Amino acid sequence: MTRVTLLESIGNPDDLKKLAVDRLPRLADEIREFLIAEVSRTGGHIGPNLGVVELTIALHRVFDSPRDPILFDTGHQSYVHKLLTGRQDFSRLRQQGGLSGYPSRAESEHDFVENSHASTALSYADGLAKANQLLGRTDRTVVAVIGDGALTGGMAWEALNNIAEGRDRRVVIVVNDNGRSYSPTIGGLADHLASLRMTQGYEQVLDMAKNAINRAPVVGPPLYEALHGLKKGLKDAIQPQVLFEDLGLKYLGPIDGHDEQAVERALRRARAFGGPVIVHCITQKGKGYAPAENHEEDQFHATGVFDAETGEAKPKSGLSWTSVFGEEMVALGAERDDVVAITAAMLHPTGLAPFAEAYPDRVYDVGIAEQHAATSAAGLAMGGLHPVVAVYATFLNRCFDQVLMDVALHRQGVTFCLDRAGITGDDGASHNGMWDLSILQVVPNLGLAVPRDAQRLRELLREAVAVDDGPTVVRYPKGTVAPEIPAIGKAGGMDVLRRAGDTGATEDLLLVAVGSMAQTCCETADRLADQGIGVTVVDPRWVKPLDPALVTEAARHRVVAVVEDNGRVGAVGDAVARALRDADLDIPVRTFGIEQDFLDHAKRDVILAEMGLTSQDLARKLTETVARHTERSREDEPAQ
Amino acid sequence: MTRVTLLESIGNPDDLKKLAVDRLPRLADEIREFLIAEVSRTGGHIGPNLGVVELTIALHRVFDSPRDPILFDTGHQSYVHKLLTGRQDFSRLRQQGGLSGYPSRAESEHDFVENSHASTALSYADGLAKANQLLGRTDRTVVAVIGDGALTGGMAWEALNNIAEGRDRRVVIVVNDNGRSYSPTIGGLADHLASLRMTQGYEQVLDMAKNAINRAPVVGPPLYEALHGLKKGLKDAIQPQVLFEDLGLKYLGPIDGHDEQAVERALRRARAFGGPVIVHCITQKGKGYAPAENHEEDQFHATGVFDAETGEAKPKSGLSWTSVFGEEMVALGAERDDVVAITAAMLHPTGLAPFAEAYPDRVYDVGIAEQHAATSAAGLAMGGLHPVVAVYATFLNRCFDQVLMDVALHRQGVTFCLDRAGITGDDGASHNGMWDLSILQVVPNLGLAVPRDAQRLRELLREAVAVDDGPTVVRYPKGTVAPEIPAIGKAGGMDVLRRAGDTGATEDLLLVAVGSMAQTCCETADRLADQGIGVTVVDPRWVKPLDPALVTEAARHRVVAVVEDNGRVGAVGDAVARALRDADLDIPVRTFGIEQDFLDHAKRDVILAEMGLTSQDLARKLTETVARHTERSREDEPAQ
Repeated sequence: MTRVTLLESIGNPDDLKKLAVDRLPRLADEIREFLIAEVSRTGGHIGPNLGVVELTIALHRVFDSPRDPILFDTGHQSYVHKLLTGRQDFSRLRQQGGLSGYPSRAESEHDFVENSHASTALSYADGLAKANQLLGRTDRTVVAVIGDGALTGGMAWEALNNIAEGRDRRVVIVVNDNGRSYSPTIGGLADHLASLRMTQGYEQVLDMAKNAINRAPVVGPPLYEALHGLKKGLKDAIQPQVLFEDLGLKYLGPIDGHDEQAVERALRRARAFGGPVIVHCITQKGKGYAPAENHEEDQFHATGVFDAETGEAKPKSGLSWTSVFGEEMVALGAERDDVVAITAAMLHPTGLAPFAEAYPDRVYDVGIAEQHAATSAAGLAMGGLHPVVAVYATFLNRCFDQVLMDVALHRQGVTFCLDRAGITGDDGASHNGMWDLSILQVVPNLGLAVPRDAQRLRELLREAVAVDDGPTVVRYPKGTVAPEIPAIGKAGGMDVLRRAGDTGATEDLLLVAVGSMAQTCCETADRLADQGIGVTVVDPRWVKPLDPALVTEAARHRVVAVVEDNGRVGAVGDAVARALRDADLDIPVRTFGIEQDFLDHAKRDVILAEMGLTSQDLARKLTETVARHTERSREDEPAQ
Repeated sequence: MTRVTLLESIGNPDDLKKLAVDRLPRLADEIREFLIAEVSRTGGHIGPNLGVVELTIALHRVFDSPRDPILFDTGHQSYVHKLLTGRQDFSRLRQQGGLSGYPSRAESEHDFVENSHASTALSYADGLAKANQLLGRTDRTVVAVIGDGALTGGMAWEALNNIAEGRDRRVVIVVNDNGRSYSPTIGGLADHLASLRMTQGYEQVLDMAKNAINRAPVVGPPLYEALHGLKKGLKDAIQPQVLFEDLGLKYLGPIDGHDEQAVERALRRARAFGGPVIVHCITQKGKGYAPAENHEEDQFHATGVFDAETGEAKPKSGLSWTSVFGEEMVALGAERDDVVAITAAMLHPTGLAPFAEAYPDRVYDVGIAEQHAATSAAGLAMGGLHPVVAVYATFLNRCFDQVLMDVALHRQGVTFCLDRAGITGDDGASHNGMWDLSILQVVPNLGLAVPRDAQRLRELLREAVAVDDGPTVVRYPKGTVAPEIPAIGKAGGMDVLRRAGDTGATEDLLLVAVGSMAQTCCETADRLADQGIGVTVVDPRWVKPLDPALVTEAARHRVVAVVEDNGRVGAVGDAVARALRDADLDIPVRTFGIEQDFLDHAKRDVILAEMGLTSQDLARKLTETVARHTERSREDEPAQ
């Protein structure tokens, strides 16, 4: 363990408050050393946490957590907060039984918001402040820490609009402005923040510049570009107007977020104000760790295991789903001028960076704004283009209404590519992409494709982009692509992966394999074949609409089973069962998927095994089901 | 028909452009007369349309629709647009085969956005403008008309942030500022708009005041309160900062939206600017029709049939679901201090007005901001209160992610009351509340109740509000409550409405009646009983989680059927079928509900009949199913 005296002496925020001010820089150094040493071994969100060391120390010295709740928006920057609230064992960070990578209400009374989806903290803060007011707890302050990137999300605007109305409710909003989401923050707001940095806090910013590591103090716009890697927006940084004050919010800043005493002073003023206040802190992602500071793409936003000395990542094995998607997009872009791409502040993580490099004028980063991503895509499609919206599966939930009403109702040709679908594991409940196969089932005019391997991802992406009269969705998991599973035949548009008759066995079981579960299904079939049970395995490729051949195939078998990497409720299994009912085919169906629950963080394989989604467990359960119905049907239908 | 010469002469926008300027006031008068005469006979959104007569005339004189697309946010203020684009037969407005109450792409090439959900138009505009830019259509302008209320929605912020970035994309955003959504617009933004009215356009506003009908010109804040019914916000109207210009958007205004020539001048300037521009128009909802202007609640936002002379509505018969909810909330409020209410700008339509009157400090109007409604409710619950969020069922889709991640994952006791659930009909596809019973199935920790009559609504609301460790939902339809259907017994927590054994018949069919379909199910059972088929009807009351007694009951019958007023996909029918499968009970199930499609506007009864959701159709289908399976089981099981 990399343990050092000062940090170890901090068991809770009270210990921190007792610490002499002159010891704080040393504490900050120790925290950085700790984070680099620990996170390099486990992987995690190192860049954002290195940026909030002084800020978090100041928060816990000024406020009285948990009486004054400190809400971390998006939550991946809560490592320092964990260290200061009694959680210093990072050895199993993001592993089963270890600390969560996000705040966790089960871990600590100091944690409030677990959700990793951005832009929600201000809404919680508004609600908590309203409760404080109504219940007469007028001495408590609610603190929300939100990034400049998350302010591009519409929820943040809705919340600011409401917080501004509560003039006597104590809410301190700390804008942690590092000029970046994953990538530099975009849009008019980013420009405005840049303008605030320029006009309001010129003096402080000069001080900041003097302290900036490895950088000569310079004056004027280039300074900010240097500090933040901002590539644009400064041409307009000339107006002194204050967006936040327009809304009626008191504004303090900008503050050098790495000057702990300056942040403390601002927070004390904010706390004393007695109403809603914005404290605008300028921080640097990856601060104090050269490999992160100098990392152009995302300042080590989130990493796997890396070498603490050099910052070099351990090489990953194999081709990822993300990079297959990225490659195919570049190819598609070359063939079709009308294909454009949209990302919600995640150009690199979704694999769109190569497309952006090849076709810079055909990619749109809309900010952390999935709603706008979907509906502006509908607008692009109305205008004659074919947009591909690349987004993590879990974040699609944030634009469900827009997919339904703005894209599907209007029959616009928009393709959504959902990365990190199914169990992602490490990042806990709010990152698992286990909802899309369910909620998208209800969307009329929408086609839903689930590739089982890289070849199918390429094919299905092309088929999806060819559809111009409604939304299409292609969803695929996190990580390395599965080995190719060739089809041995077709049944309608479905791929047949195993055919019961081929082994001479009776047609006992039709196994419908959805996407990444195809390998497991084939192994299950092989196990069952060893026991003399005849199994046909089909991959529908498009799970919505279902292929009519599915009913025909089902009618030839005694039992049907569906296996998918999605919540069991309302997903493909239910759709298959409904299709058979509607065809008056009353045949036993069994549906296997993720239990419909919020899952604690753990490795994907561990979770799948716990859910019984292994070939062993599936084979065991299906053997029983087939046996029961084979006996029954033999009793019932002696003539056969 | 109330037809008058000038309006009849306008077959398309070109005719309007040719009209001499001095004829325009007469045209405006004719349009108002037409709207009052026609909408008083059919019902519809009269108030908003009376407010945009001059604005719409100006839009079609300045821009070249449809080359310059004019996008109406929320869409209910598009009647004048319809009149000016060749659609002057309003005799069957909102009726089957007649004009839609919203823009309709099937009706006209001048219509683009059909969705009635607020705050989306700016995102479409951004997409269309990006397409124009990429495809070199640099002479075209995209126009979006959005209310001040819709600007409180987060999507609008996301879009503004993006539109601001496209400095050379031609987008004209017309803010139709009447100071109201249904009710006065709330929040910091509303205050800021009031401040703009005060500081920027003092001269114009004095002119407006001079022209204000039935009002003496006055100076200063009271004028604005008089014009807009604003009750607050003006205390802070002192800062000249311009929110929109902070984002980098050119701002023109405020303009008197009833001075057609002033609006034309502003729009021509905006069009010539060549980049994104906001044109801020001040209008008056219900303008020119005294009963609407003087209507305090909502200026005749949306009405049924009314008397054109007096404005008096035809009295409605019977108690509405909305008012039962409203009454019970007042009673609950008296019993429990911790019950608070939240509305997204729809205090009156959702029935919360009596609660607000009784407990003014315990109700929060958050603006048209369903996301914030849900997540601030989670905050209120964390703070020790029990919030009831009252919202139309279709709008719940806008906060699906917040219900899932912010409320359910955090196990907060928040009750959502979904009015207008099921088929609403008149307002078309985007108003039908046919999605909630499906998408809410996937939310862990969430309880979902569907009352069949007023008594059950009261009971279930109380049961829901008693749950403090997760979200609860109560959903009920539009209109008059169904007659009370007493339970004749219980099966677990389910109400038994008919019992097969009671008529001496065999237990052929278990009919699961969801909420408002209970009456139809009982009638179906009676029809089947006449044919000697024994039917048990149960109302589960809570459809999630399903009562374990449902499986026990199902096991006693030969066939199970589920009938619900929701899209068939992924809803209660699928859940019942899954529960039986999971219990290894392979019994035939049939599920009846709304076909999963976007439905054209028509009366609820007409749509239900078209879907086969009548007792006649259900009895016919179920007779066949029961007959088939009775024969089969008699053949198969001779011993019984």
